[in-house]
Amino acid sequence: MQRSNNTLVIALDVMGGDHGYKSMISGAAIAAEKNHDIHFRMFGDETKILPECRRHRSLQNRYTIIHTDEIVSSNDTPAYAIRNARRSSMRLAIEDVKVGISHAVVSSGNTGALMALSKVILRMLSSIERPAIAGIIPTVSGKSILLDMGANIDCSASILMQFALMGSNFAKIILGLDSPKVAVLNVGSEEIKGSDTIKLASQMIRECKDLINFVGYVEGDGIVKGSVDVIVTDGFTGNVALKTAEGTAKLCREFLKQSFESSILAKIGYLFAKKSIKNTFSRLDHRYYNGAMLLGLDGIVVKSHGSADEIANANAIGVAANLAKSKINSLLTEALDSSINIHGLLE
Amino acid sequence: MQRSNNTLVIALDVMGGDHGYKSMISGAAIAAEKNHDIHFRMFGDETKILPECRRHRSLQNRYTIIHTDEIVSSNDTPAYAIRNARRSSMRLAIEDVKVGISHAVVSSGNTGALMALSKVILRMLSSIERPAIAGIIPTVSGKSILLDMGANIDCSASILMQFALMGSNFAKIILGLDSPKVAVLNVGSEEIKGSDTIKLASQMIRECKDLINFVGYVEGDGIVKGSVDVIVTDGFTGNVALKTAEGTAKLCREFLKQSFESSILAKIGYLFAKKSIKNTFSRLDHRYYNGAMLLGLDGIVVKSHGSADEIANANAIGVAANLAKSKINSLLTEALDSSINIHGLLE
Repeated sequence: MQRSNNTLVIALDVMGGDHGYKSMISGAAIAAEKNHDIHFRMFGDETKILPECRRHRSLQNRYTIIHTDEIVSSNDTPAYAIRNARRSSMRLAIEDVKVGISHAVVSSGNTGALMALSKVILRMLSSIERPAIAGIIPTVSGKSILLDMGANIDCSASILMQFALMGSNFAKIILGLDSPKVAVLNVGSEEIKGSDTIKLASQMIRECKDLINFVGYVEGDGIVKGSVDVIVTDGFTGNVALKTAEGTAKLCREFLKQSFESSILAKIGYLFAKKSIKNTFSRLDHRYYNGAMLLGLDGIVVKSHGSADEIANANAIGVAANLAKSKINSLLTEALDSSINIHGLLE
Repeated sequence: MQRSNNTLVIALDVMGGDHGYKSMISGAAIAAEKNHDIHFRMFGDETKILPECRRHRSLQNRYTIIHTDEIVSSNDTPAYAIRNARRSSMRLAIEDVKVGISHAVVSSGNTGALMALSKVILRMLSSIERPAIAGIIPTVSGKSILLDMGANIDCSASILMQFALMGSNFAKIILGLDSPKVAVLNVGSEEIKGSDTIKLASQMIRECKDLINFVGYVEGDGIVKGSVDVIVTDGFTGNVALKTAEGTAKLCREFLKQSFESSILAKIGYLFAKKSIKNTFSRLDHRYYNGAMLLGLDGIVVKSHGSADEIANANAIGVAANLAKSKINSLLTEALDSSINIHGLLE
């Protein structure tokens, strides 16, 4: 297949994720309804994919199946995924971006394997030390970007500085902002707080003032407060923060449910307020924020949540489509080159 | 003043916290109503404390004021608090525990200074490498204990192991459990996940199987899920997780408020459901979980939140009273000695 000028070609690793191929294909069907320019290249078991695709009218003439029996399972180590399973659906989907057939790849499979395979196949952008996983999270006033969400457990100051640059450019595209406010996650907002790594990272980011609108530190509650657009942290802390936020939102829902079941009056109130309550939790529903980019790779790779259902997968595909339409990686390369000039001069 | 057999004497650093002396004294008044055995020793500016105490009937004959003009401010570094302000309300209150007049001290002042002064004045329990801040957080099924909440940014495996021991004993007293389930916070529940430090800590904790009911790793959402009772992590991650959870709970409340204001029907529903909604958020209200213990010191020091109001301070005083009645530090010393035997034999 050749790329036409207007068609976005998205490679789907259909065999990853906890809910299997159906949730990814149904997600593609939803995305296809919303975005008429997308063509899907579906990697996986044809005997499963074909009947499922035929069930969705919106997918008619909108997909190509590339058959493979091999898959990367959620328990495979990154090393195993690289050395074995040379024809896994995940690997082939990434290679499709490498050879220039697809503009982006979406997978809800094993995150470690996705990152490792992407690094090996697509390579990193020049001057990137480590790719990061950047995700979208709900805030009081809209959305913000959190990175790294789990790719790098330990991060040096210069890696955090690169995350700030990458996150800022990601936010420009995904949140549509001219000058996203970037903050570093810390245990206090005062200058003296935090580890030496964080202090140095903060100083390096501040030196990139023409590239990053750096506003200083935020604490954990600042992630969802909406006062900043990009929150930079290491992958361990980012992963814990993200999952703590998701867990707490579920906790709120559970407590509210228990309250509404506690009395007749409460049950009546629920009948009236049902819609509002549903609205509330749809604003907190992580499915609507699904789709994290593996930033810093020479190609667009979007990670959909392992537990993604069709709605969540449709959102991840939407993120991939937006990124594919943008020039994110040229923006990133430009910003990174400029930052090297800055920190190069300082040495 | 001499300790009677039944009286609990609690030293209050009345001058700390964002809301000033009034919120601590009002908190003491609420605690005094609930617990008739407490006598307060209030450290701070007598000209402010006395009129305020006289406003509360429940405090009548229940307090002693120890006047001082000096205070530790929220901007003071720990080193400054130790070297200067030799008669600060915080320092004098801690010294009151040291000399055996008070059974416990409560402060809502500068956390770093409180920890540093407590270490200098009270000293650590023998065999403790670093004290931790252990706090109580709401979960789906009740409460759990999170530590460290911010005292130690970097933690070695053996420090995390000691946190597990201390947290387990803290949970026995505060949550009233015989065998609290202890978990280590990580970025995945599989054995292979996490840093080397976390893996080693997990192994060391597992070796203390007669002392700790260790259930393995939990991810961020596990903090509030209620499936474990004690969550062990370093102070950086713990602080971020705690504040992320608080921030997300506020976000839920804000979204719900906006929803209920969005239509006439929703407003009617709110009138019926008002009480249920208030119940929901009181279960998430961090004021009711206020009172974090500085574990590992040879004395009971309870940190009340900097932004604590009277309800929050009353809860912190309640925690201090419970701990003072218990034999927490003998329990801790015993557990730590046993763990040294275990890990000593392995070397």
